[in-house]
Amino acid sequence: MKKLDKGYIQIYTGNGKGKTTAAIGQAIRAAGFGLRTYIIQFMKEYPYSEIESLGKLNNWIEIEQCGKDDFVYKKELPPVEEIEKGKNGLQRARERMLSGNYDLIILDEICVAIYFKLFNTKDVLSFIKSKPENVELILTGRYCPQELIDIADLVTEMKEFKHYYQKGVLARKGIES
Amino acid sequence: MKKLDKGYIQIYTGNGKGKTTAAIGQAIRAAGFGLRTYIIQFMKEYPYSEIESLGKLNNWIEIEQCGKDDFVYKKELPPVEEIEKGKNGLQRARERMLSGNYDLIILDEICVAIYFKLFNTKDVLSFIKSKPENVELILTGRYCPQELIDIADLVTEMKEFKHYYQKGVLARKGIES
Repeated sequence: MKKLDKGYIQIYTGNGKGKTTAAIGQAIRAAGFGLRTYIIQFMKEYPYSEIESLGKLNNWIEIEQCGKDDFVYKKELPPVEEIEKGKNGLQRARERMLSGNYDLIILDEICVAIYFKLFNTKDVLSFIKSKPENVELILTGRYCPQELIDIADLVTEMKEFKHYYQKGVLARKGIES
Repeated sequence: MKKLDKGYIQIYTGNGKGKTTAAIGQAIRAAGFGLRTYIIQFMKEYPYSEIESLGKLNNWIEIEQCGKDDFVYKKELPPVEEIEKGKNGLQRARERMLSGNYDLIILDEICVAIYFKLFNTKDVLSFIKSKPENVELILTGRYCPQELIDIADLVTEMKEFKHYYQKGVLARKGIES
C-alpha cells in the first residue's frame, strides 16, 4: 500500500471555474499512483456528474455528498438540520482522515459552507490541526477565510477573467454540473 | 449517445496549481454524464499518474502524450523532431475533434507549447476556428497568449498565493505528477 511521506494543505478558492474539478483531477492523479481519496461535497445535494464516473474508481476514490444549499437562495441562515448534517459530515471526514485508510481528503465547498455559516472557521481549523503527517488535505470553495489561508501550504486563487455565463448561458449537465 | 447542444472554449492559465487537474476533473465530470473526451498532453513525456486511472474510464476518456520538454531546460529552441511531433499531435487532436466521436477536447499545456515555440499562436487559432459547434474545447498552460484569451468564452487564471515548493518541496508522485 502506497503512502505519502508528507501531506500538505491545499486550498482552491476564488470566483473562477475549476476549483472542484481541480480537486477531482487531483484525486484521479492520486488514484493513478495507488493513493486513496475520500471526497465529501458540502451543500451539493444535486448529483454532480463526477459522482457517476468516480464510482468506477471506487477502489481508490470514495465520494459522498452532505447537505443542501437552498437556504442560501432563500437568504436564510442554515436551518438546524443542515447544521447537524454538516457537523456529521465533517465528523465522518475526520474519521476517514484519522483511519489511516486514505491519503487524500477533499472537503469540497467547505469555504462556502463557512461563509454561509454552516461551520465556524474554528471547526475547520480544528479539523486541519488533526491532520496526520502523511495525509494531503484539499479545501475548496470561494470566500476562503484568511485564517485558513494562513495555515495552508498551497493556496491557488481561481480568478475569473472572462465567463460565458455573462452571455446568458445556463449550467450544462456534464460540464458545469 | 449524449451530445452537448453548444460547446465553448475554456482556458486554464496562470502560475498556480490546478490547471491540468481542473481539465481532467472536467473530463471526469463529462464522463459521468456520458460525454466522451480526448486529451492530448504536450511536452509531458514523463508518465503522469492520471494516465493510469483514466485508463479505467477508457470508454469515455482517451488520453495520449506527445513530445517532451527537455529542450526547455537546455535553454534551446525546440528541435525539428519535437516540432514535428507537436504538429502531428495537433493534427490527431483535430481529427478527433472533427470525427463527431468526442464531446470534449483537451489540449493540455498547449499555451506552454506556444510559449516555447513548438507552435505558433496562429496554428492554435486555426485549430480553435475549426471547432464544431457541439464540442467543448479546453486549453491549459501558463503564458496563454492574448489572441487566445480574446476568442475564448471562459478564461480562468490559476493564481498562486502561497506554495510549499517555496519551502523546498520537490514534486511528489501521485500529487504533483
